[in-house]
Parts: sequence; structure tokens; C-alpha cells
Amino acid sequence: MIYVTRRASFSASHRLFNPSWSDAKNQEVFGKCNNPRGHGHNYDVEVTVAGDPPAATGMVIDLKKLADIIETEVIERVDHKHLNDDVDFMRGLIPTAEHIAMQFWKILQPKISEGKLVSIKLYESANNFVEYRGE
Amino acid sequence: MIYVTRRASFSASHRLFNPSWSDAKNQEVFGKCNNPRGHGHNYDVEVTVAGDPPAATGMVIDLKKLADIIETEVIERVDHKHLNDDVDFMRGLIPTAEHIAMQFWKILQPKISEGKLVSIKLYESANNFVEYRGE
Amino acid sequence: MIYVTRRASFSASHRLFNPSWSDAKNQEVFGKCNNPRGHGHNYDVEVTVAGDPPAATGMVIDLKKLADIIETEVIERVDHKHLNDDVDFMRGLIPTAEHIAMQFWKILQPKISEGKLVSIKLYESANNFVEYRGE
Amino acid sequence: MIYVTRRASFSASHRLFNPSWSDAKNQEVFGKCNNPRGHGHNYDVEVTVAGDPPAATGMVIDLKKLADIIETEVIERVDHKHLNDDVDFMRGLIPTAEHIAMQFWKILQPKISEGKLVSIKLYESANNFVEYRGE
Amino acid sequence: MIYVTRRASFSASHRLFNPSWSDAKNQEVFGKCNNPRGHGHNYDVEVTVAGDPPAATGMVIDLKKLADIIETEVIERVDHKHLNDDVDFMRGLIPTAEHIAMQFWKILQPKISEGKLVSIKLYESANNFVEYRGE
Amino acid sequence: MIYVTRRASFSASHRLFNPSWSDAKNQEVFGKCNNPRGHGHNYDVEVTVAGDPPAATGMVIDLKKLADIIETEVIERVDHKHLNDDVDFMRGLIPTAEHIAMQFWKILQPKISEGKLVSIKLYESANNFVEYRGE
Repeated sequence: MIYVTRRASFSASHRLFNPSWSDAKNQEVFGKCNNPRGHGHNYDVEVTVAGDPPAATGMVIDLKKLADIIETEVIERVDHKHLNDDVDFMRGLIPTAEHIAMQFWKILQPKISEGKLVSIKLYESANNFVEYRGE
Repeated sequence: MIYVTRRASFSASHRLFNPSWSDAKNQEVFGKCNNPRGHGHNYDVEVTVAGDPPAATGMVIDLKKLADIIETEVIERVDHKHLNDDVDFMRGLIPTAEHIAMQFWKILQPKISEGKLVSIKLYESANNFVEYRGE
Repeated sequence: MIYVTRRASFSASHRLFNPSWSDAKNQEVFGKCNNPRGHGHNYDVEVTVAGDPPAATGMVIDLKKLADIIETEVIERVDHKHLNDDVDFMRGLIPTAEHIAMQFWKILQPKISEGKLVSIKLYESANNFVEYRGE
Repeated sequence: MIYVTRRASFSASHRLFNPSWSDAKNQEVFGKCNNPRGHGHNYDVEVTVAGDPPAATGMVIDLKKLADIIETEVIERVDHKHLNDDVDFMRGLIPTAEHIAMQFWKILQPKISEGKLVSIKLYESANNFVEYRGE
Repeated sequence: MIYVTRRASFSASHRLFNPSWSDAKNQEVFGKCNNPRGHGHNYDVEVTVAGDPPAATGMVIDLKKLADIIETEVIERVDHKHLNDDVDFMRGLIPTAEHIAMQFWKILQPKISEGKLVSIKLYESANNFVEYRGE
Repeated sequence: MIYVTRRASFSASHRLFNPSWSDAKNQEVFGKCNNPRGHGHNYDVEVTVAGDPPAATGMVIDLKKLADIIETEVIERVDHKHLNDDVDFMRGLIPTAEHIAMQFWKILQPKISEGKLVSIKLYESANNFVEYRGE
């Protein structure tokens, strides 16, 4: 078994905000991330697929295909977008790194036919990142 | 003469958009950067000050003071903000990296009393960055 | 379950030295790390907390709070310090990356009340790093 | 138990090519990686060893020794080489990152006498990397 | 005047070798870079264009256009190639970073119509890089 | 003319302290960098040499020779050392990044016989760095 990772990047804006809460509570919980007009990040995402590479190719998954799946299924839908307003699969969810990673998993898992998706790692910055392993 | 650089970071959102143009022209010129609800970046800024370090301190400028000036004068005014809507010194300017760097220069230059400001370098991402040298 | 990581940095000096050994043995085991007046590093530490993010916040742990805990409990006690001489919780321990990571775990674990501490990763340099998972 | 990692680098060229296939099939499967005269990468390898550090040294494994083993056993045999043509332990294998990582494991595992090899991570670029854990 | 930089990457192989010299002289001058079957690198290139951004766009040059020029004019001709054998504009030149940067300049300078090309920076690795400014 | 840069690294400790000042004045000027038992950094140094590469080699300077000069003349004298106490060429100087860079220049300039030394860049951390150009 080998773990193969492909990294991709996107730039997006978001606002951390729970519409069922008062402004004061939102401010208390989300602080400056609650700025009404939003703020943004350069996100990096690392998608890891595990499998046993056949000797004939030496590859768990064709990285070009994996890159294309990541690009088409997630990057194009979030890049240069506002995560609260522009992205259908984030509708009704607070767009934290945790929720983004979990939604990426839901979208990508059924698309990966060689190997098995085992991890989505999402960097909001060099100092803050999350990982979801489907557990 | 020695060139001393201090780096700082902020996260912000923006929209590239010229209000005197049609939607079609904005789209043609700014492409996906013209998304109406904006998108965002983690920006890095490098501020370079040149001077002759006195032997008694060996420092062109106290880096702690330089870091405080950068934090107070620019970072606090742009971090977790929407550059078009929330930042007074960007009002009326298209918030490209070029314009942000030039405004940072205008703000920081009069605040630096040891040494001389010689460069503002602004990274919008690892792949895109600009430098302004006051020329 | 999501794994959330916060990174922080500090600069410190240390000497690898076992006082119960002869100078020759210390030199043989620790080599140039045994220089009597010490040497130093910029350390990066990554603290990972795992949990299930409540839908109301989308956050395993408030990253601002986690950052404050890391800053107050460990960074302030080691930053710009000599790890052998200045840091109470390293007293009597050889200040290798392994021992630093294990002590950080002991200090941080009881302070983390949302989620569960699962990993302390400590980088002595880009080429040398250790991870402790409480096992 | 602590996980200790040492990173090393090498530059090499390779061609992804299965000699039992037609040119057309090689092109279809390996794309531009099948260029007959090869192409190359700066590879980074991270070798992770796990163990319980004795109090007398605070070290799972002497990192200097680990670095020497990595240098002598693998880096010198692949650095500034063509992986298909110049490297005996890659003979008959398609030189994907997966196969390189698995061969490094086979070579390094018997050489590591303090602690236990638990992971070989191989970066072909910042965007593509694999990990082998001996499973 | 603002300096705008766009970074791009490619992977290639090469051999440092002067055909008018003996094998012994090639080995003495180029060492392991003279391996007959070549070796390779992940190269990063930074292209810097200087100009005065018009207020209507705030941009010295449309970065998307600059990225396209770099991609079409240079990256596609060197990526996943052998620089000695596969690249017409390197024919007859020893493919050092110096020569690659100078050839990139010759190719890119006439293609840049907004602003003025002022620098080509080429990284062969994090530790080795060159810059050509057209001087 | 081409600018060729070689990067190297070292780990050292230091204390910012002016012995002709009172403790209070040292504390006021140097803050936590004045900790009596010192603190440390991983330093990166970039040495830039400019010249015209002869067609026969395509190289301004043999990078292997430049790397050896940097290693022998400076790195071995500062790596894993205390800059105030262990390094003869820092004697009597406050070991700021500015002073270290200037001393490296003095040492390296007469040793470089191909091309001309034009810059010493010294990184104390990713956020703090200085450059000396011999001016």
C-alpha cells in the first residue's frame, strides 16, 4: 500500500457567521472572521489516495487524472469565489476549514476509482490547517 | 549601508472592478478577479529599510519597532477586511497588488525615522508579487 | 472527526550534554551539538487537536483560543531562552527535540478542553523534526 | 514512542516507460512523462524512525548517523543520475515515485538499528508526493 | 514604477558537457553534472516586468496574459524535456542555469508589450539560482 | 552579466548586548534578545556573485567551488557556535544580522576569484533578514 498525494490551490473569501445567532454572539465566537463584508485566503488542499501500485504502471492512480478530478470537481467551484454566497455545496454551512474539507471529501470520494481516498488536508494559511480522514 | 527587511502577513478579500466601466468590460479586463462578491488572499508584505548601523547597536532600525509600525499602520487596517469596502486608504482605487503596495509606501514612509524606506514587496500568492521602490 | 493544527514558532539555544558523562563521551555522542556555550535554532511547533465540529460553529476548537494557549503555556517560556538554563520544565532533561515535544505535550494536554490533543510536531530545522502522539 | 524524521534531497532524471507496451500505449498511460530522452526533478525524501528515546541521550536515533545512512545507502546512488539507466536497484522497475519509495524502504530498513523505520515520504515536487509505510 | 513578478515551474533534465573537450576535462569542470545519461531538476522561473500602472486598471500588465506568454513561449518548450536534446533554443549551448535564463530573456522580451522586462530569475534548486537583467 | 546565488545554512546562538551600557539600557534597546544566556536561530545565507559566463562553461563561477568557499570560510566557523563567545571574527561586535553579514562580506570578498561578490543576504528567520552589498 502506498499513499499518493496531489496538492492544489485556490483563492476565496468567506465570513464566519451563524445566522441563527445575534450579532453580539457571532462577534464573540468568530471575532474578526465575522467581518460582514468578508475576508479571504489562499487555500492549499492536499488529496491523498491509497492503493497498491500495479507493477505495469508503478502508479496507485494516474496523477494527471487525479489532478483533473480535483480541478473540475472542487477547485473550479471555489476558486475566486465567496464561499458563503457563490458555492452551492457550502450553502447552509459555516465555511470553516473543517466544513470545507468535509464537503470536499463528499464530492471527491465517489469520483476516485483507482485506489481509495484516505485524507483531505486543507491549509487556510501556513499556521492553520485541518485534516479529514472520513472517520 | 545595509538593507533590513521585516515580513508581515494579512488575510483580506477584494474585487477588481472599475465602476466607470460596463460589466462586460470589467469581465474582459479583470476576468474571475471581477467576481461581484469578491475573493481573497493571504498576503505577505516585506518592508525594507536601508541605513548605516551604528556600532553601538549594530542595528539599522530596531526590528521590534519596525514590526510595531507595520502592524499598527497597515496590518490592523487590512487584516480580515474587504479591501474595496472596509479600508479607507483604498477608497476610489482598484485594489490590485500594485495599488496596495503604493498606498502602504505612502503610509509607512513618514513613520520610519531610523534609516530610509527603500522597498515594499507585496505577495498576493507565491506565484504573483509586486515591488514598489518609491520611484 | 477532524484534525485541526495550529503552528507557532520560537527561537532558542541549547546544548546537548549529559552531566553524568565524561567530556569525551559527550563529544562522542553529541558531536558539535555539545559545544559548551551552546548553539540555537528557529523551532516550529505544530499542535494537532482532534474532535467533531458542532454544526453551530463548524470548529473543533476556537483557533484563536488554541493559539493563545500555545503562546502562553509554551512559547513565552521558551522563546529567546536557553533551553538548558532558563526553562524550568526542561530542568534535568537533555534538551533534544524529542524531550521538548514530550514536555510540550505534558503541559498542553490538560489545557485543551475542546477536542483532544493528538500530536505535537516539533521542527528543529527543515531537515530534522520529531512527532509525539502521547503513545 | 517518538517519530523522528530526517529529510534529504537529490536531483535525478527518469522516463516513465513500460518496455512491454507499444509506444502508443506508453504515450497514453504516461503522457509527457514518457519523453524518450527523459526529464528530471529535485526530489526530497523524508525518512521517519520511531522509538522510545533513552533518558541518557534523549534521542531515538543519532540524527547524524541516520543522515549518514541515508546519504550513503540511497542519496549517493541516485543523485545526479538517470533512474532508469544508472541505478542498479531500479533496474526492471518503472521509476515512479511509488517504486522509488518502496526500494528506498527495502534498502534502509535493515540498516536502521536504533528505533524502527516507519515511513518513507518522497516528494517529486511540492504538488506530488507519496508515502510508503511498509504495509 | 512598479515591478510585477510572475512565477512558473517546469521539470527538465540536462547534462553539463562541452563536446569540444575531452571526457577528462568535462569531468574535471562539470563533475557529477556531467553524468552521460543526464540528471534533472524542478526549475522555478520568476519573470519581472516594470511599468507604471494606469489608474483605470491598477495593473502594470495583465498577470493572466503574462502567465500565458510564459507558459506558451517557454514552459511548454522545456517542461518534461531534456534540455540538451529536445529544446531547439538551447542547441549548441551548455544548458547551465545562466544560459537558460539568457535564452528565456531573448524569447520573452519581444513578447512583452505592456511594461518592460527587467529580470529573469531561474532557480535550479532552493540553494542555487541565477538572475539575468539584460545587462 | 549574470547574478549567481548560492544558499547555505547554519545554526548558532547569540546575545545582543553592549558591554559599555548598563543592564537597564541593554534591556531597553535589545529587549528579549538581551537574555544573558543567549538564544538561537537557524540562519540562511545567500551569497551572490556577478559575472559574464564564458561560452565554454556557461558558468559565472563553479557553484561547487563557491559552495566550498562558503562552507570553509564562514559556515564551519559559525555553525553550532555561540556568536559572541566562539567566533573570532565577531569579537568586539554586537552579533546582529547586520554585523554578521558585513563580516561575511569581508571574509568572502578576497576569496572569490571568478566573478565579483555583489551581495550577502542573511536570514535570521523567515520574517527578518538583511542584505549587504558592500556599499
